Amino acid sequence: MARQDRPALAIDIGGSKLAAAVVDSGGRILVSAKVPTPHQRGLSADGLWRTVVGLVRGVASGADGEFAGIGVGCGGPMRWPDGVVSPLNIAAWREFPLRDRLRDEFAGLPVRAHNDAVCLAVGEHWRGAGRGASYVLGMVVSTGVGGGLVLGGRLVDGISGNAGHIGHIVVDPDGPDCACGGRGCVEAIASGPRITAWARENGWRSPPRAGARELAGDAARGEPVATQALERAGRALGIAIASATHLLDLEVVAVGGGLAQAGPLLFDPLADAFHRHARMAYARGVRVVPAALGQEAGLVGAAALVLAGRRYWSAD
Amino acid sequence: MARQDRPALAIDIGGSKLAAAVVDSGGRILVSAKVPTPHQRGLSADGLWRTVVGLVRGVASGADGEFAGIGVGCGGPMRWPDGVVSPLNIAAWREFPLRDRLRDEFAGLPVRAHNDAVCLAVGEHWRGAGRGASYVLGMVVSTGVGGGLVLGGRLVDGISGNAGHIGHIVVDPDGPDCACGGRGCVEAIASGPRITAWARENGWRSPPRAGARELAGDAARGEPVATQALERAGRALGIAIASATHLLDLEVVAVGGGLAQAGPLLFDPLADAFHRHARMAYARGVRVVPAALGQEAGLVGAAALVLAGRRYWSAD
Repeated sequence: MARQDRPALAIDIGGSKLAAAVVDSGGRILVSAKVPTPHQRGLSADGLWRTVVGLVRGVASGADGEFAGIGVGCGGPMRWPDGVVSPLNIAAWREFPLRDRLRDEFAGLPVRAHNDAVCLAVGEHWRGAGRGASYVLGMVVSTGVGGGLVLGGRLVDGISGNAGHIGHIVVDPDGPDCACGGRGCVEAIASGPRITAWARENGWRSPPRAGARELAGDAARGEPVATQALERAGRALGIAIASATHLLDLEVVAVGGGLAQAGPLLFDPLADAFHRHARMAYARGVRVVPAALGQEAGLVGAAALVLAGRRYWSAD
Repeated sequence: MARQDRPALAIDIGGSKLAAAVVDSGGRILVSAKVPTPHQRGLSADGLWRTVVGLVRGVASGADGEFAGIGVGCGGPMRWPDGVVSPLNIAAWREFPLRDRLRDEFAGLPVRAHNDAVCLAVGEHWRGAGRGASYVLGMVVSTGVGGGLVLGGRLVDGISGNAGHIGHIVVDPDGPDCACGGRGCVEAIASGPRITAWARENGWRSPPRAGARELAGDAARGEPVATQALERAGRALGIAIASATHLLDLEVVAVGGGLAQAGPLLFDPLADAFHRHARMAYARGVRVVPAALGQEAGLVGAAALVLAGRRYWSAD
C-alpha cells in the first residue's frame, strides 16, 4: 500500500478510559478497543504504560500491513510537541515521555501527540460537525471544559501547544474560584463536577455518588434545582462561546463531551445567552451544534495528526 | 527596481484623520501626509474620495518609480476582502467600493484592504512590539476597542474578515449595554467615550467637551473619579486579555491607541486584573506591552498587506 494510503494507529488516553484504534486515510475506524483507565493505588508509570502497549498491540495485530504513524491524544498538561505528559487525572504519569516511549516501542513509526480536547476538535473538523468549515471551535464539556481551534483550515497550536483552552475564558470576573487559580472561568461554573456541586449546595437531593449524568436525568424529570444548575452552566457556556465568536469570527462551534448529552436542557439556555451576547452582525451566523462523532472523535482526531498533518500538525 | 523591492502605497482611513504614505520593503515610511477627516454636512461620498485621492497622489509624487501595490486600512464594518466599506464614524461612505475605486484610480496596482485595527496589529507584528513573535494580539483602545490576531506567524482573518474584535469579548455579563447590541463587552466599559461618560456620571467635573485625554490628565493629577475610571477600564481590559491569552496561548499582547497614552494609570490596573485571571502556567509568560509604532502602525500594517502578503494576506 502506498505510504499516504496507510492507516494510522490512534490512541486516546483519558482519566476514565484508554482507547486505541486503527483509522484509515478516510477517517474510518477499522478496529478499536478500550479499557477503563487503571487507577489502583501504587500503580507505577510502567504498569500503566504496559496496559497502553497491550491495547495498541491488540488493535494493530487486528489490522493488515503497515501504518503511517501513531497519533495520540492525552489529558493535559503536556509539554508539546515533545509529548511529555503529566495528565491531571492520571496520577501514575508525571513528566512521562509518552511520545518517546511510543517511538521506541513501535520502532520506525512517527509519533504525534496533542492534548485530548485538541484531538477531539480536530476529529470534529476532519470528519464531524465542522467538516468543510474553515473556522471551527471544538469543545468538550465534561469533567473539565476544553477545546481546540481550527482557523483558516489549520489547527492553531499556540506558542506552547495550549491554544483552545476555552474553559478558562472568564465569564464572571467575581464568580467562583477556578482550579487554575483564577476566578469566574467558564470551567468553574460549567464543568460536570462544578454543576453537581452547585446543585447540591442549592438543595439538589441525590445519592452521594451521583454525578452529572444523574443530575441531567433529574432535570429531564423536571427537578427544579437540577434544571437551574444546567441553565446556569448553559448560560456560562453561551457567554464564553459569544466571546470566542466575536474574537475569532467563527463558522461552527461543535460542543461535545458528556454534558452535551443533556441536550436542550443545556443547549437552550446556552443558545439564549449566546444570542444575547453575540450581537455583531458577523457573529450571528455561526452554527453552534452538538459534536457529531461522539466518543470516537478523540481517536479520529489523533489519527488526523498523522493522516492529515498538513492541516493539523505544524511542529515538525 | 525588482518588483519585490518596490515600495507600497499605504492608506489609513479613520474617523478623525486620513493618512497616506510610501513605505519601503523594510517597513520604513519614506514619505507621508495626513489631514483631518472632513465631516462637513452634506459631504458626498465622492467629495471624501477626492480628498483621499489627493492625499495619495501627493505622497506618490514625492517618491521615485513604481509601486508594488496599495494597502489600505479603514474603519469597519467592511465587506472583506472586497473592500466595500461603511465606516461607523464616516457618514459619507456607506457601501463605498473603496478597493475597486482605488484599483481604477491607480490603474494596474493591486489593492488590499482590511480593518484599520487589523492593520495596526499587523504593523506591530511586522515592525513593532510583536516583531519576531509568532502569537500576537494587537489592540487599539481609543474611540472603540479593536484589534487583530497573528497566530502561527500569520494574520487570522476569520470567515468574514472580522477576526480580532477583542472589544466584544464579554467581561461583565450583567454590565453596561454595548453599542453592538450586547451587554458587558469590554468596549462598553473601556472605550474612550465610555470611560469619560462613566466618570461624568460619577462626579468627574470637567469642561463639556473634555474627552479621554483630559480625563487622563486629571487622573495624572490625582483626581479620584478620573483615576477610578481608568482603573475600571484597565480591569476590564485585563480580563479580556486574560481570556484571549488562555484561549490562544499568546506570546505578546501589544496595546495601542490614544488611551494607551495614559500609561501606568491604565496599565497598572490592567496588569493586576490580567495576573489575577491569567493563571494557567502557559499564560503567565505572555508579555503585555504598549504598542511600539504609535500613529504609524496603521500605515505600516496596511503596507504589509502588500509587502508581506505571504503572512498577512490570505484572500487572493
